[in-house]
Amino acid sequence: MTDTVKATASDIKEMKIRGAGRIARAGASAMGKFAEDYNGGSLEDFKKDIDKAKKIILDSRPTAVSLWNGVQASVKDVGSAASLGEAKASVVRNAASFVKMSSSAVETIAKIGAKRVEKGDTLLTHCNSSAALGIIKEAHLQGKDIKVYATESRPWRQGLLTVKELSDAGVDVTLIIDSAVRAVMKDIDKVFVGADTVTSNGALINKVGTSQLALAANEARVPFSVCTETYKFSPMTIFGDMVEIEERDCGEVVKADEISKGVKIYNPVFDTTPAKYIDAYITELGVISPGSVYDVMVKQLGNDIFK
Amino acid sequence: MTDTVKATASDIKEMKIRGAGRIARAGASAMGKFAEDYNGGSLEDFKKDIDKAKKIILDSRPTAVSLWNGVQASVKDVGSAASLGEAKASVVRNAASFVKMSSSAVETIAKIGAKRVEKGDTLLTHCNSSAALGIIKEAHLQGKDIKVYATESRPWRQGLLTVKELSDAGVDVTLIIDSAVRAVMKDIDKVFVGADTVTSNGALINKVGTSQLALAANEARVPFSVCTETYKFSPMTIFGDMVEIEERDCGEVVKADEISKGVKIYNPVFDTTPAKYIDAYITELGVISPGSVYDVMVKQLGNDIFK
Amino acid sequence: MTDTVKATASDIKEMKIRGAGRIARAGASAMGKFAEDYNGGSLEDFKKDIDKAKKIILDSRPTAVSLWNGVQASVKDVGSAASLGEAKASVVRNAASFVKMSSSAVETIAKIGAKRVEKGDTLLTHCNSSAALGIIKEAHLQGKDIKVYATESRPWRQGLLTVKELSDAGVDVTLIIDSAVRAVMKDIDKVFVGADTVTSNGALINKVGTSQLALAANEARVPFSVCTETYKFSPMTIFGDMVEIEERDCGEVVKADEISKGVKIYNPVFDTTPAKYIDAYITELGVISPGSVYDVMVKQLGNDIFK
Amino acid sequence: MTDTVKATASDIKEMKIRGAGRIARAGASAMGKFAEDYNGGSLEDFKKDIDKAKKIILDSRPTAVSLWNGVQASVKDVGSAASLGEAKASVVRNAASFVKMSSSAVETIAKIGAKRVEKGDTLLTHCNSSAALGIIKEAHLQGKDIKVYATESRPWRQGLLTVKELSDAGVDVTLIIDSAVRAVMKDIDKVFVGADTVTSNGALINKVGTSQLALAANEARVPFSVCTETYKFSPMTIFGDMVEIEERDCGEVVKADEISKGVKIYNPVFDTTPAKYIDAYITELGVISPGSVYDVMVKQLGNDIFK
Amino acid sequence: MTDTVKATASDIKEMKIRGAGRIARAGASAMGKFAEDYNGGSLEDFKKDIDKAKKIILDSRPTAVSLWNGVQASVKDVGSAASLGEAKASVVRNAASFVKMSSSAVETIAKIGAKRVEKGDTLLTHCNSSAALGIIKEAHLQGKDIKVYATESRPWRQGLLTVKELSDAGVDVTLIIDSAVRAVMKDIDKVFVGADTVTSNGALINKVGTSQLALAANEARVPFSVCTETYKFSPMTIFGDMVEIEERDCGEVVKADEISKGVKIYNPVFDTTPAKYIDAYITELGVISPGSVYDVMVKQLGNDIFK
Amino acid sequence: MTDTVKATASDIKEMKIRGAGRIARAGASAMGKFAEDYNGGSLEDFKKDIDKAKKIILDSRPTAVSLWNGVQASVKDVGSAASLGEAKASVVRNAASFVKMSSSAVETIAKIGAKRVEKGDTLLTHCNSSAALGIIKEAHLQGKDIKVYATESRPWRQGLLTVKELSDAGVDVTLIIDSAVRAVMKDIDKVFVGADTVTSNGALINKVGTSQLALAANEARVPFSVCTETYKFSPMTIFGDMVEIEERDCGEVVKADEISKGVKIYNPVFDTTPAKYIDAYITELGVISPGSVYDVMVKQLGNDIFK
Repeated sequence: MTDTVKATASDIKEMKIRGAGRIARAGASAMGKFAEDYNGGSLEDFKKDIDKAKKIILDSRPTAVSLWNGVQASVKDVGSAASLGEAKASVVRNAASFVKMSSSAVETIAKIGAKRVEKGDTLLTHCNSSAALGIIKEAHLQGKDIKVYATESRPWRQGLLTVKELSDAGVDVTLIIDSAVRAVMKDIDKVFVGADTVTSNGALINKVGTSQLALAANEARVPFSVCTETYKFSPMTIFGDMVEIEERDCGEVVKADEISKGVKIYNPVFDTTPAKYIDAYITELGVISPGSVYDVMVKQLGNDIFK
Repeated sequence: MTDTVKATASDIKEMKIRGAGRIARAGASAMGKFAEDYNGGSLEDFKKDIDKAKKIILDSRPTAVSLWNGVQASVKDVGSAASLGEAKASVVRNAASFVKMSSSAVETIAKIGAKRVEKGDTLLTHCNSSAALGIIKEAHLQGKDIKVYATESRPWRQGLLTVKELSDAGVDVTLIIDSAVRAVMKDIDKVFVGADTVTSNGALINKVGTSQLALAANEARVPFSVCTETYKFSPMTIFGDMVEIEERDCGEVVKADEISKGVKIYNPVFDTTPAKYIDAYITELGVISPGSVYDVMVKQLGNDIFK
Repeated sequence: MTDTVKATASDIKEMKIRGAGRIARAGASAMGKFAEDYNGGSLEDFKKDIDKAKKIILDSRPTAVSLWNGVQASVKDVGSAASLGEAKASVVRNAASFVKMSSSAVETIAKIGAKRVEKGDTLLTHCNSSAALGIIKEAHLQGKDIKVYATESRPWRQGLLTVKELSDAGVDVTLIIDSAVRAVMKDIDKVFVGADTVTSNGALINKVGTSQLALAANEARVPFSVCTETYKFSPMTIFGDMVEIEERDCGEVVKADEISKGVKIYNPVFDTTPAKYIDAYITELGVISPGSVYDVMVKQLGNDIFK
Repeated sequence: MTDTVKATASDIKEMKIRGAGRIARAGASAMGKFAEDYNGGSLEDFKKDIDKAKKIILDSRPTAVSLWNGVQASVKDVGSAASLGEAKASVVRNAASFVKMSSSAVETIAKIGAKRVEKGDTLLTHCNSSAALGIIKEAHLQGKDIKVYATESRPWRQGLLTVKELSDAGVDVTLIIDSAVRAVMKDIDKVFVGADTVTSNGALINKVGTSQLALAANEARVPFSVCTETYKFSPMTIFGDMVEIEERDCGEVVKADEISKGVKIYNPVFDTTPAKYIDAYITELGVISPGSVYDVMVKQLGNDIFK
Repeated sequence: MTDTVKATASDIKEMKIRGAGRIARAGASAMGKFAEDYNGGSLEDFKKDIDKAKKIILDSRPTAVSLWNGVQASVKDVGSAASLGEAKASVVRNAASFVKMSSSAVETIAKIGAKRVEKGDTLLTHCNSSAALGIIKEAHLQGKDIKVYATESRPWRQGLLTVKELSDAGVDVTLIIDSAVRAVMKDIDKVFVGADTVTSNGALINKVGTSQLALAANEARVPFSVCTETYKFSPMTIFGDMVEIEERDCGEVVKADEISKGVKIYNPVFDTTPAKYIDAYITELGVISPGSVYDVMVKQLGNDIFK
Repeated sequence: MTDTVKATASDIKEMKIRGAGRIARAGASAMGKFAEDYNGGSLEDFKKDIDKAKKIILDSRPTAVSLWNGVQASVKDVGSAASLGEAKASVVRNAASFVKMSSSAVETIAKIGAKRVEKGDTLLTHCNSSAALGIIKEAHLQGKDIKVYATESRPWRQGLLTVKELSDAGVDVTLIIDSAVRAVMKDIDKVFVGADTVTSNGALINKVGTSQLALAANEARVPFSVCTETYKFSPMTIFGDMVEIEERDCGEVVKADEISKGVKIYNPVFDTTPAKYIDAYITELGVISPGSVYDVMVKQLGNDIFK
């Protein structure tokens, strides 16, 4: 196997390369380089070798949805290639294309999403999503005179990061506790949140509390938009995998001396928002319905995933 | 005016007597004592004098719903009394009756509510309501093998008091952050919360976040019950008064050094849960529908309130 | 039978007395006068005679809900009276009480309802209800800085009366066509409409289009309040009568030359709004839930209606 | 204790007197007879003795809601009676009144409910409720040209009784299986069902499957009415008692030879329909909202039930 | 640039060619003619030149969604063409294909939609949509014995055109005012409306009032179908553009002398119906879900739109 | 025409080949064999001849959705083939591919669906679907400690087959009557049902009663999944065809002697579940949203279906 593949796998495994977007692009690039450098014999050989390369990369972080997406998007046309040259060229082209789209995805999303903010809107966001905040800051830069509510987002209180980032950017921002979401919803025009993972039937896995925002928004006829790069669409969910909700240490919620011994703590990181509460996914491929997630995935990954 | 009335008013004003139930009973008792001791002339004199006494008591805490209820319940039959003796007797009797019902209200509610808990139920509660916890502890004492989730209830974190109280009583209790309410709702059998105030058309004013619990419970077909003494039913709302939602200091949410100067904080204490999300009010007068709140109020306060 | 009773019946029949409130008060007054003047023999005689008087009055306008209410409210305690004197006195007292409450009902409703309007609210109303407009004008007089949307209310376009009345009173008012209700609902804080008739299980019969407002308000979590004197609560609905929806001439919708011969026109005057979309009835007896309508009716009419 | 009381208790216990209405009336009559015959000393003696009589009657069928209602309605004014004569008279009067109302309740309900059926309506009913069928037959007799769907109502298939009864009465009736309820709902104008028990917060306990009808009716904006005598309103539910859902033998569902040994059968007789799906209770006291059930109960039973 | 392109652009700009379908086909034809006539040099030259031609056409009516669709559908395969010949051929073929599909779209929709009408159905339509009316007339021609309600559609009252058109075609049609939609909905079997614009996440922009129909249909379980050519699917919405709701002159709603000076008029032409209320889009490419709109667009426009 | 085509058509017509999957694969295989054996002249000849072959096969069972799918999936690339060889090869390849996917579809669905079952889940199923039962049995085999409720599924009582099949496989299974679905829903974690037909806008046609399950599941926030091979997606519905709901003999519901002559029986076999109640379709191509059904169909059938 080429050095690039092994080196990339090693860098990902050792966390030298980190962040959903970065590891996805590193994986795609490694596949592209592998194809470019390939000197071997037949198309069949190439197919076998690129499968091995793919496996090496994916094994470096088996649960990373974005890595799977980057690698698979690169190799998607190998199966239907008629010649070695065509196969190699497709990988080089698809890898480059993935890297390009993915690099500018957050910026693209900001531009697309900002168009959906109207003058004088009051927005609500949860936790600390770079895609959602990108939209808000872009709308502010466009002079749309917006006002933003941000939740505290216990237990880690990423809301404090959010209000700092928005305040530094000059946005009029108000912090609320997580329980006040429904209390302020009657004054909200639009909700923008990010995504951890998106499932093939259009559901959203994101920071715990997101589904409560969605429910309260829906009750009050407030549009609820999810801002996300498409490499967060999980191909594993096509095949039935459930996204496991990570449960974290209770020390994040209370200190040992704040609580009696017998009391348990349940501290899930994420929750699930069903498709029916989501008005739009705002992605680098445009504004889509939850009903289009599967199709976008298959288009990006190729039909070979079914083999 | 008698000494008792003045002394009671003074004690209430100076917070020597505090707590919704205690001030209501003190007010009712003072009215009863006033009537008992009344030595004056005609029925008309008595009506004027008792109105003055009533005013003195109510002015000691003009916003206290429970005080208004205790005093008005005591004098409700004066208007239709045919003689001074009848009028005096009615005040003595009604005051005593109010004190008796009110003293045992939390205990009565616990007994009534506990019957609605089934073996093996998983319950959810919010903040720290003595009426709701009374039901939970009573159900536990009856050996119903229950499990309870309690929210942290930011910003004051009264949830820590709740889990301590339940854990000390031997109840299996789990603390969650406020954002996790919808995430655990699928495992909940029943929700029990308390009340700050109840409006004449059956809405509930309670600790901020309560309405989100109600919304999430309703979405999942989980019965949502409000546990409350009827002296929290607000007669002022009959006449259109809106319950003002207190807003508290931002220092309760973040410390000054945790946040940039430009960031605002919105810190409401309560929110409003509409009648349609409430399955039952569990009161010392039984399990009632939100649609019966007005009628219970009028029955307790008498028709004279409309004059 | 006394002259007053006959004269009143005649005046109502000949439309000399008209308007729901006025005929109700005339009916009640006639009953009171009849009792006051009664010189006859036994209690039993009185019961028979007052039944005759009641029948004469009611027959003057058999479908008038308010008349039925005024007359029945006057005689409600006759059945349980222990003596002729008591019976006569009860009719005099109850008739006077009905007249007093009813005369000031619109004003009382305006004061109660205006408390429920908050500073800066944007309101929506339909058709031309004096009770609803009373609230809006009172809130404006209190300096609450409100903005109002009023529907055109085809086919009679009573909305033109509404916007004139509000504009003359200095209120900031905007006219919309009936189809634009949902389009503006996202900017509305509260909806206030009037009532033609209210049924015993809490439903509202009012100007066609009202139920669409209620539906759209409910979808957007906007409180929907009905402003009405309690003499519009229909006792006939207790006994199962359906409120017949009047259908009017098609000429009100199109002129003959605007339409082909074969085209039909359906022109109902009212529609029905179910109780579940109504947050509150604002009446002269306070703010009540749809679930309390039956009880208010029975309290006002007495248990004798079931005999 | 008098012979009548003992004899009645015995007859109820031994099922000589059976049926919810009949045992209620027998209980009330026995109380009336007891009071009428009472020869004892003081008012206090009478209160004690009537409590004993009440206990004897109630113990003959402790779970019968209607019996409790009949007996309590008879004695409701004893607590506030000023003399022995007054107390005795009140029991005689109240017992007679209960018997009268209750005897004609089904007929009264039929007349009230039939007014709510419109010409050409298609109705749906479930199981075999005499109150619901009374309405349907009365509407048919009035020549309203109705069509009725009736469910089979497994496992006992009471639907076969229903279609026979309606067909014999000349009604156009169609039988469907229980699974076809939602399939036909789009053609239904109104649903009428009976009640086993009604709770104080307005919920309905009735033949299993009723709640599915209510849910499907609500989804399709079809009015759902419950036809019931008020003696089925359960006073025990005021005090928190849950209505126990009887579970019956699995042999009613399958014969032993139809099924493997390991297979379990769950055969509940009733289910619970929440108040929010119920448009109206049609009772002998008129058409009421679920929000009025508590008030009707308290009015019928008296305030002494809270002592 | 060729004469055809310039001439077409000029005709569109000067409104010689008008109507969404006609300008789209004119644009596509011009692109096809341009490619057919192209005599230039390399593939690269062609790509540049066709981009210029495209720009000229689109600039003739920058906001016309259908024009954008016709032109882009024609050039969609240029980016992936391997030779000048292939590129030219693709434009000729795609332009012809667009023209063919688009020309027969309304007719195709009528045939598809009519199959969804059942014998004896009562239908409801709003405003004056040729696609919706095509379906209704086709169903009538097939002898399906239908009945139609049509709204007046204030302020322009296009409903008068609709009832004339349907009546002339022999359809049983009834006109209602816009406020009567919910009042008649209980008798409606299916709703068919047209579209002005469809967004990438499946929402509908159409004549104001459409969203109220959809809401009322949904409440009553009545299928709500949108009849539209796919060239009304807006590619701009993929990239976040909001469809601007045109606001028109107040003179359309009231005459100057009908209204006081201070009264404002708000007169929006369209409103937005969210995807969740739409059962089906009936298009010339078949019956699709709102969740498929994005995919149909991308398939028709090609992936080059993302570059 | 070749013998294989005619023989296959004959076997299907005479029911020698039966079952949705088997006839689809037989049809596809026949098309593949026809193409393989084709000795004729030009590409144009082939196109005409394969159309004839297709017609022969489809006419053997005109209403069979799966047959249409198998045959069309085989010929989908003929239209775009550049040579006879390419056309023939595409049919051979596509037919083989269809047969392969379809043969293993139930097994693939079982594996995908079982991943969505969590340890300790209580499941509910209706009727007797091999795809749904495949998932349940696979989850059981994986040791997930599940409990299953199965409905009786009148009138044929296929539920008895279901409980036998599950019990034989060692699954803990409980039979309920169809009316008990909502009663048990509060204890259900997930619902899995099969499909008869799926429409292009994502609705489900399945055994009558399925839509009640979906409605009750939705009310209680219980995920509702449909387990189905994609060859049950109906291409005819793309073109507007409504799926006709078969009505069967009344003798299936009652025996002649159980019922009066005048009573009608309505015995529909299927009902329709709208897309909004369906969380996921679990297919051999993965877990998809109802919004993706159209796209999956078009991808499998090719764009030629629009010609």
